[in-house]
Amino acid sequence: MNYLLRNENAIYYECAYSCDNVIFVSLGSESYFITDPRYTQEAKECSVGVNIIEAESLINSLIVLLRKHKIKSIIFDPNDWSVVLFNQLKSKLQVYFLEKPHFSMKKRAIKSDEEIKLLKKAVQLGKDGFNRFSDYLNKNGLEKTEKYLFFQAQALMTNYGDLDVSFDPIVAIGLNASKPHALPTNDKLKQNDLLLLDAGIKYKRYCSDRTRTININNNIKFNTKQHFNKTIQKAYDTVLKAHDYGIKYARVGMKASEIDQLVRGVIEDNGFGKYFIHSTGHGVGLDIHEYPFISSKSDMIIEENMVYTIEPGIYIPKEFGIRIEDMIVMDNTRAVVL
Amino acid sequence: MNYLLRNENAIYYECAYSCDNVIFVSLGSESYFITDPRYTQEAKECSVGVNIIEAESLINSLIVLLRKHKIKSIIFDPNDWSVVLFNQLKSKLQVYFLEKPHFSMKKRAIKSDEEIKLLKKAVQLGKDGFNRFSDYLNKNGLEKTEKYLFFQAQALMTNYGDLDVSFDPIVAIGLNASKPHALPTNDKLKQNDLLLLDAGIKYKRYCSDRTRTININNNIKFNTKQHFNKTIQKAYDTVLKAHDYGIKYARVGMKASEIDQLVRGVIEDNGFGKYFIHSTGHGVGLDIHEYPFISSKSDMIIEENMVYTIEPGIYIPKEFGIRIEDMIVMDNTRAVVL
Repeated sequence: MNYLLRNENAIYYECAYSCDNVIFVSLGSESYFITDPRYTQEAKECSVGVNIIEAESLINSLIVLLRKHKIKSIIFDPNDWSVVLFNQLKSKLQVYFLEKPHFSMKKRAIKSDEEIKLLKKAVQLGKDGFNRFSDYLNKNGLEKTEKYLFFQAQALMTNYGDLDVSFDPIVAIGLNASKPHALPTNDKLKQNDLLLLDAGIKYKRYCSDRTRTININNNIKFNTKQHFNKTIQKAYDTVLKAHDYGIKYARVGMKASEIDQLVRGVIEDNGFGKYFIHSTGHGVGLDIHEYPFISSKSDMIIEENMVYTIEPGIYIPKEFGIRIEDMIVMDNTRAVVL
Repeated sequence: MNYLLRNENAIYYECAYSCDNVIFVSLGSESYFITDPRYTQEAKECSVGVNIIEAESLINSLIVLLRKHKIKSIIFDPNDWSVVLFNQLKSKLQVYFLEKPHFSMKKRAIKSDEEIKLLKKAVQLGKDGFNRFSDYLNKNGLEKTEKYLFFQAQALMTNYGDLDVSFDPIVAIGLNASKPHALPTNDKLKQNDLLLLDAGIKYKRYCSDRTRTININNNIKFNTKQHFNKTIQKAYDTVLKAHDYGIKYARVGMKASEIDQLVRGVIEDNGFGKYFIHSTGHGVGLDIHEYPFISSKSDMIIEENMVYTIEPGIYIPKEFGIRIEDMIVMDNTRAVVL
């Protein structure tokens, strides 16, 4: 099978190295990593099982390669190619380009045991970051702005630059948590505030992702046992119940949409249906968002060794927001929290 | 003129708001900002002179809009559209799509006086970050790893989360500086090391970009007066001379390639030509890399109010690297350092 890749993580998956300017070409038993002079040295040192080609123009070098091997047809992902680049390629070759959207990401949905070990380690290192942040909050959190707490979350998740974050952390206080993708403001943290932290790190390029919503009291912990006022507590207990229910009843062989409905059903039954405004979860691996997507629209069948998040939420506009998220792996037909 | 935009900064330029999931449509005197429910509230509050359309599917909403207005032809930038998205659009409409690569970025190459003020402020805030980092290095820098210094550079450039960085800082010690895009290692900073810092921040979305290469001594400053051993000093003085020469002789009306040659010529004349392995500079604005590109291949004519970097470098593989970079604005026919 001949195929082209442009996506950095898709390419890393193939040859254990990647960079931000590369075309990867697989032609039967041989693979090629076409990159510019900035990266060739590192590529030669770090990649596995691939021929490194240094090129001034990646696309011209690809054209030469495909001509030389007399390639008649090749698979590509139309999501990864811009119209301008693809037209350059197509216009100079007599090759049939077969569109296969997300073919690499689909291949990566089921993790190897080695990948699950890396993801488990990433989750553990992510939890360590949450713990460093709760220590910080207990000692110094009050009266700090969301913006400053965002900076601290980043510093503590990465352990002062030792790790990369898998995405910019979301640190939201009170009503700002009612926006699922809140940007940090100058609002200051007060006693009894609600605080939502959604954050993750990367371990050997594999991502972690976790959310907790907590009450700011005298013993701050990012666990799921939290005490809020009555209105918030009702929503909180519903989110936690939905989260636990999804994890308890998810099974290999279900459609992703069925798992979404397991979780969504609990929230609907408790009268909060219209406030759960996103899907239940997403796969996690080299990409922070990948297959399987746990949404009402996904027919993907859940299989052994898939890794994804369960992250129900309730967002009451201009009041508060709650989300609880864990990463799970399908192990022995069931969901196990990583 | 009808046109489509997908690029976040291009869209911000048009209507003072943007987000990461939007299609912007200009149809004569009316403009439309098509986005999903996560962003519609903010878009309504922050945008100027544009109609906000909330959509489940951006592309379907765009198709309906173009049909409703009976649009026959529309301009788009083929760099900003993936093959998959563009095919969805094209297949459902009888519209002529006119390719204009980088048409928004070209429009943005010449800055308004207001934009120059914002860029000046960004540069000043960026310099403040360099100063905080030199204070840190003087007090605590020795024996810290590149990775930790990278974290500190980020913390101090952003003033602990108050600003965004315009790109991940490059902090490179000694021979690691010989790679123009070095990733931080566990190497530790020692007395008399060479250290390269390339960093910038954003002020109201406008970017700053600056590089200094310094000697680690008892009075660390990110200025251009530095003392190295004889071998390094020769290269350093050449880079500084090239940098100053480019700034002194750049004129409105020159081709970008002529400015590249002004700078490159100095490095070639001093025998380092083959070690200057990138172009002389790039425009800076909402994007960290935009028009004009100051390279040997660019015919773009330099005009009043263009803002770009002059950043010659010499990279001796496995020995050391030097780069000195400032942002300039073309003002009254000449280059003025911002």
